[in-house]
Amino acid sequence: MSTKDLAPLPRVLVEDKVKEALQEDLGRAGDLTTQTVVPSNVNSRVVLRARENGVVAGLDIARTAFRLIDPSLQIAVVAKDGTSVGPGQDIAAIEGAARSILMAERVALNFLGHLSGIASCVNRIVKSIDGSKAHVCCTRKTTPGLRAFEKYAVRAGGGMNHRFGLDDAILIKDNHIAMAGNLEKALRSARSAAGHLVKVEIEVDSLEQLETVIDIGADAVLLDNMDPDTLGRAVEMVSGRMITEASGGITEESAPAIAASGVDLISVGWVTHSAPCLDIGLDFDQTVL
Amino acid sequence: MSTKDLAPLPRVLVEDKVKEALQEDLGRAGDLTTQTVVPSNVNSRVVLRARENGVVAGLDIARTAFRLIDPSLQIAVVAKDGTSVGPGQDIAAIEGAARSILMAERVALNFLGHLSGIASCVNRIVKSIDGSKAHVCCTRKTTPGLRAFEKYAVRAGGGMNHRFGLDDAILIKDNHIAMAGNLEKALRSARSAAGHLVKVEIEVDSLEQLETVIDIGADAVLLDNMDPDTLGRAVEMVSGRMITEASGGITEESAPAIAASGVDLISVGWVTHSAPCLDIGLDFDQTVL
Amino acid sequence: MSTKDLAPLPRVLVEDKVKEALQEDLGRAGDLTTQTVVPSNVNSRVVLRARENGVVAGLDIARTAFRLIDPSLQIAVVAKDGTSVGPGQDIAAIEGAARSILMAERVALNFLGHLSGIASCVNRIVKSIDGSKAHVCCTRKTTPGLRAFEKYAVRAGGGMNHRFGLDDAILIKDNHIAMAGNLEKALRSARSAAGHLVKVEIEVDSLEQLETVIDIGADAVLLDNMDPDTLGRAVEMVSGRMITEASGGITEESAPAIAASGVDLISVGWVTHSAPCLDIGLDFDQTVL
Amino acid sequence: MSTKDLAPLPRVLVEDKVKEALQEDLGRAGDLTTQTVVPSNVNSRVVLRARENGVVAGLDIARTAFRLIDPSLQIAVVAKDGTSVGPGQDIAAIEGAARSILMAERVALNFLGHLSGIASCVNRIVKSIDGSKAHVCCTRKTTPGLRAFEKYAVRAGGGMNHRFGLDDAILIKDNHIAMAGNLEKALRSARSAAGHLVKVEIEVDSLEQLETVIDIGADAVLLDNMDPDTLGRAVEMVSGRMITEASGGITEESAPAIAASGVDLISVGWVTHSAPCLDIGLDFDQTVL
Amino acid sequence: MSTKDLAPLPRVLVEDKVKEALQEDLGRAGDLTTQTVVPSNVNSRVVLRARENGVVAGLDIARTAFRLIDPSLQIAVVAKDGTSVGPGQDIAAIEGAARSILMAERVALNFLGHLSGIASCVNRIVKSIDGSKAHVCCTRKTTPGLRAFEKYAVRAGGGMNHRFGLDDAILIKDNHIAMAGNLEKALRSARSAAGHLVKVEIEVDSLEQLETVIDIGADAVLLDNMDPDTLGRAVEMVSGRMITEASGGITEESAPAIAASGVDLISVGWVTHSAPCLDIGLDFDQTVL
Amino acid sequence: MSTKDLAPLPRVLVEDKVKEALQEDLGRAGDLTTQTVVPSNVNSRVVLRARENGVVAGLDIARTAFRLIDPSLQIAVVAKDGTSVGPGQDIAAIEGAARSILMAERVALNFLGHLSGIASCVNRIVKSIDGSKAHVCCTRKTTPGLRAFEKYAVRAGGGMNHRFGLDDAILIKDNHIAMAGNLEKALRSARSAAGHLVKVEIEVDSLEQLETVIDIGADAVLLDNMDPDTLGRAVEMVSGRMITEASGGITEESAPAIAASGVDLISVGWVTHSAPCLDIGLDFDQTVL
Repeated sequence: MSTKDLAPLPRVLVEDKVKEALQEDLGRAGDLTTQTVVPSNVNSRVVLRARENGVVAGLDIARTAFRLIDPSLQIAVVAKDGTSVGPGQDIAAIEGAARSILMAERVALNFLGHLSGIASCVNRIVKSIDGSKAHVCCTRKTTPGLRAFEKYAVRAGGGMNHRFGLDDAILIKDNHIAMAGNLEKALRSARSAAGHLVKVEIEVDSLEQLETVIDIGADAVLLDNMDPDTLGRAVEMVSGRMITEASGGITEESAPAIAASGVDLISVGWVTHSAPCLDIGLDFDQTVL
Repeated sequence: MSTKDLAPLPRVLVEDKVKEALQEDLGRAGDLTTQTVVPSNVNSRVVLRARENGVVAGLDIARTAFRLIDPSLQIAVVAKDGTSVGPGQDIAAIEGAARSILMAERVALNFLGHLSGIASCVNRIVKSIDGSKAHVCCTRKTTPGLRAFEKYAVRAGGGMNHRFGLDDAILIKDNHIAMAGNLEKALRSARSAAGHLVKVEIEVDSLEQLETVIDIGADAVLLDNMDPDTLGRAVEMVSGRMITEASGGITEESAPAIAASGVDLISVGWVTHSAPCLDIGLDFDQTVL
Repeated sequence: MSTKDLAPLPRVLVEDKVKEALQEDLGRAGDLTTQTVVPSNVNSRVVLRARENGVVAGLDIARTAFRLIDPSLQIAVVAKDGTSVGPGQDIAAIEGAARSILMAERVALNFLGHLSGIASCVNRIVKSIDGSKAHVCCTRKTTPGLRAFEKYAVRAGGGMNHRFGLDDAILIKDNHIAMAGNLEKALRSARSAAGHLVKVEIEVDSLEQLETVIDIGADAVLLDNMDPDTLGRAVEMVSGRMITEASGGITEESAPAIAASGVDLISVGWVTHSAPCLDIGLDFDQTVL
Repeated sequence: MSTKDLAPLPRVLVEDKVKEALQEDLGRAGDLTTQTVVPSNVNSRVVLRARENGVVAGLDIARTAFRLIDPSLQIAVVAKDGTSVGPGQDIAAIEGAARSILMAERVALNFLGHLSGIASCVNRIVKSIDGSKAHVCCTRKTTPGLRAFEKYAVRAGGGMNHRFGLDDAILIKDNHIAMAGNLEKALRSARSAAGHLVKVEIEVDSLEQLETVIDIGADAVLLDNMDPDTLGRAVEMVSGRMITEASGGITEESAPAIAASGVDLISVGWVTHSAPCLDIGLDFDQTVL
Repeated sequence: MSTKDLAPLPRVLVEDKVKEALQEDLGRAGDLTTQTVVPSNVNSRVVLRARENGVVAGLDIARTAFRLIDPSLQIAVVAKDGTSVGPGQDIAAIEGAARSILMAERVALNFLGHLSGIASCVNRIVKSIDGSKAHVCCTRKTTPGLRAFEKYAVRAGGGMNHRFGLDDAILIKDNHIAMAGNLEKALRSARSAAGHLVKVEIEVDSLEQLETVIDIGADAVLLDNMDPDTLGRAVEMVSGRMITEASGGITEESAPAIAASGVDLISVGWVTHSAPCLDIGLDFDQTVL
Repeated sequence: MSTKDLAPLPRVLVEDKVKEALQEDLGRAGDLTTQTVVPSNVNSRVVLRARENGVVAGLDIARTAFRLIDPSLQIAVVAKDGTSVGPGQDIAAIEGAARSILMAERVALNFLGHLSGIASCVNRIVKSIDGSKAHVCCTRKTTPGLRAFEKYAVRAGGGMNHRFGLDDAILIKDNHIAMAGNLEKALRSARSAAGHLVKVEIEVDSLEQLETVIDIGADAVLLDNMDPDTLGRAVEMVSGRMITEASGGITEESAPAIAASGVDLISVGWVTHSAPCLDIGLDFDQTVL
């Protein structure tokens, strides 16, 4: 879906994951450092602050981490999800018991940095093709356990989501074709069996294959590893009868030429499986005893 | 711990996570593509194959994904965890029902690529400082929910593990010092309260701070963002009385000079939070109807 | 998807639910009756037997119940899922420890009767419209916690599945239209925001609304509570540009006329929320001490 | 237990199930329709409204669904659980963010309709035997995962609960008798082994069997599939020494004659496994932007 | 239920708890000692051996711990649950990978020692009243999370089980009476509301209260903190019309006189909440490299 | 860690366990007694009151039980965790709906009594060695599922914590030594493989073994089953180079002599596996209708 109106993830999809991450970090003994070093009556005000350029994603999730540790913490959002930030720019301010803040810090930052990293990478590609009609989208190459969060981060970065799982669309890839015998058989079989709200997409490696797909029909076609020229010819052949999606190692640098070919979508796996963390820190502002 | 003898993760720490990842991918309807495109009686033999240089980690986890989908799949390991592989090199071979293989493929690859990516990055730094006495280690900047797996990948890459959570060692950082009032107070407080099997480490930003730490004593000192020269002087000052750990944006390129300063440990956050996925594919070998 | 090839539900989607149901029945003390009344060394052979006409669904799930209680039970399937059965007809035979069989019996039958009840109702409507091009499909009006199982039962009965949840397609209903202001705004907004593999369906109550929908375009249109004549005119108006779905209290009796109108789909909520259980019993064949 | 004072289900037995149902419906992407069609700033007031005659059950559970999605929703109960309602009668009013209301709607209605359906069926039988001393009760033929909820619905409808599981009473049925060798052996064995707070009930198919049961003694006897005359003779034979329970396909129509036989209890499996959903809708009252 | 035939706990009630305990012990890093000290190719044979007199309970549970760590371990049971053992006596022998054995050892022993401790305490009281008609039973004063296991241990020790929870019988205690206004009101209210398979027991502190209970009727009466003489008079007054249960700090020493009073049951809270662990060790027999 | 500042257990480590315990007690039907005997409009004020001398631990956990049942209960803490109490002394007062109080009572007391029992035993040993430099610590011999809670209770009693699991320190025991071949090999192997924040402790049974350990070096040495004289000689030999820990059946009576030997730590397994429950009751103060 588009990012014009970035709906927050439902609470019931967020809280369990965040609690699990806190339990993973606290282990059985809790935060040994904070409870032996920081007096329980110290209050603090801290800020989550970007240390580099990027797009924020996951602030609600980070906020949930602080809130699950201590519901009395006061959290003020400065730059909500989807906002571009730069070095030194504040994202949120948190005020309350110093022990609570420090106990939730790493989990909050691990989520926020990871998701903002994804949003930032997506956003760079989105900006690089600004002016074209193409959209950037993601894949199922996500970190196990975090798919809903990472797909959300893609939206925060201005991208679209591809399938969320094996069960919400049919995508016939080379291996499926090999197993089914041939492309024609695979595609016909999928189309006849697909539910009425299930779209069918198929991967092609050549314009010959594309020809067959056009003959049989599909909702979308994945044009795998084609250069911009071939993509352009493919788009012409399809002529609006299917959604066209280009994929295969596309980067910020190669995206503009790909987009110029006229494809509808540019899908990028690395934005979820290999995006570096966005550097965000937690800085103390002052301490009030 | 060292990597001479890479012990597998206990089954009871692996299976639930893998099952959760499969459920995340299968959703409520299961694999729409496979069940509409691939006949149920097709058997296949596929190989997990590296497409670039790196170190394998997570093969047991990937194997668990295939096994949870279909216990009758036959899986032969070619390159076990910790092994270096290159483009085109086989990692494992899987044989059995084509539907089962395709259903587990993405989850298996998501784990394997992510963890091998971490192992590979760690290993490049490890190799870059070969000959020095320094070890490479990781941090708590891990992907939420996957800490045990990512720490394992670090070991597979030849690295050592730092703390697994807030509860297995005391690590006093700048924020803790600020909250406690001053470094001396923080360190004394931690040492007097620490359990007899809990080590105390403290972060210092300057040689002046280090002086105080040496006076009071600690098990380890984190030398944050120091250049090789300063690190060298720090190592001399410590003179074997504490473990010395260098940290702060260290890369494969900067590591050798850091290691040459004589520090015991080089800790690197990015190997867990920003390591790109290792490119591993699943290739069909043949199909047996 | 179609039922030509009824793929079994993946194990990882089945086992947890069945285990939960067994735990619900066994409570904290286990089966008081069996362990006080039936000697532990008694073996038996029993059959799951239909007591009325219907279609079997959930045999794998029932089998999982027996297997989770006692992996040594031998289970032979006679009438697999999707098969029509009649009174007195055997569905499966189970052999092994009498205690184990009796301990799993109720949970196995609760699943099997409930799901076969759904499959049977679906199948009666499917048969009633035999010869027409229309398909029968279900809704999201399912029993909480059992959606994947009930949707599977619909397929076993020869039906198609509608959406599995709020997240795999857009379906704009009257309430959405009211909230968005008007139909046109709602539909345009959905279409511009929908992901490329997400279909958009919209509910209309009148041919006037349908006119607007045709102008704007959609993947499918839900023709709510229309009589066969109006449906026929709607189908003509749509003229193949969208999938047409009729809904609203459709029964085995009214379905043929609805189907004759030319709609693509007949959706029926009651087959999942109000289908009576299919009467299936567990009969002892013989006892071997 | 009786329904004079219908105690609500404890929160700790309700919340997890409702959260699970919401997660089942929201999947990984959340509510695609609402977030693309309904602006986030729209507020609404809706009513849960009966569309047919019946008895309400599950309103607390429905309320939990709305509250878990959005704690700021205001919910006013009009007809609490156990109340009879008719077509057009309001059950509750909900006010707040339109997106939140729509997101929780289906899950709330699925619970409310299913449980009210059970309460309504139970209540019809209860009313049909009004004036007799017999009580209506349920069985273990419940929907997997929902036993506590469905047993509660039976109470809301004016019925009593039978066993909640295999572990809270002994009920010796025909299969147990067959496995134990004979009725006498089974009953004696159960009585000698039963805990002091565990009641023993046994199923009999004939007055001959009943004779033996009376001789040995039991807390209750299940008179299976007997006609009213035979039941009357059985009640006479028992003469108050045991609780008498009639069972076997009893309906609203046949119940009065059964009750007139003097039995203490009429147990009905179909009220939990085959009760049709009570038709309850969610209607928008007005919209406040 | 009696202990003549000690039925094992169903697998589905055992495995999750044992897995949870293993995960609790293994944490995130697994067994640091074993994997750094014991070579992976060492095989061993060990025995679980009693170091004091007692009764074994929990061997299946301990076996599950070993099996979940390593299904290839060979486990031979020597003294099954319910057996009396003495110092030096073998309970079971385990053979297989030394690492696996050591990894599961503590969890297996924690379950086995705890449950055998309970069985042993129960058994001492049971033996002390040998020859009387009284049975020893337990309470709801169990360790949170382990009720099913501890109740099983009571059975293994020769005791009977009282209620398993708040939901399987009515037990009116002094606080309930105070809240309800008076004993008569409380008891009448419970009897009229109780389900037909739910027994009603009530606690009395005096023979005056007992008089009232006899008048109204109940299934069982709890005679709290009465001396043997008073108990004897109470038993006479009841004269077989209710089950009589004595409770209040009863020990192995005081039990015989209590039993001689003629009560049916002696209930003891401390056997589950304060029984010391039975000392059982794991001894290596030999090592085979 | 020390008990000067007893930090509460983080909420995210407490709530799930307490909810699970409540679900275990409430089963499927909830509290049959309270809902049939106590009118829903009765309010009460009760106190948690010690009936014997001891140290309180687990009050937050007990409070969580009441709060999860009914968030509107008012709970006032009188004697917080770590406080010594005597017979008749109030620990906390609770006010609100009588049904809610009674429903949570047993679970709250089961936690509070069990944990206070541990704290009390630990505290008696701590007091018995008052004036010595030795600390009392616990082991991994804890009740499955409750390790974090029991370790917390040890701290509340004035003790220190040993390892929390297999993964936070290396502790080489006799069995490990046997498996590794000999003590020297085992210790060297552990030290070379241990992470930089992982301490290594080793068990010795004789001063000869201790000699070897001193030569190789370790962080701590466990002096198993030595008499005070031998311990004194061991402490002299170690001379501050390692932490010394005495273990082996140490009681309140034997502890002073052990402590006088100069060891740093006295570890006691029975305080977690065999501590009797502290007798704490819930007394009604008054009832307000």
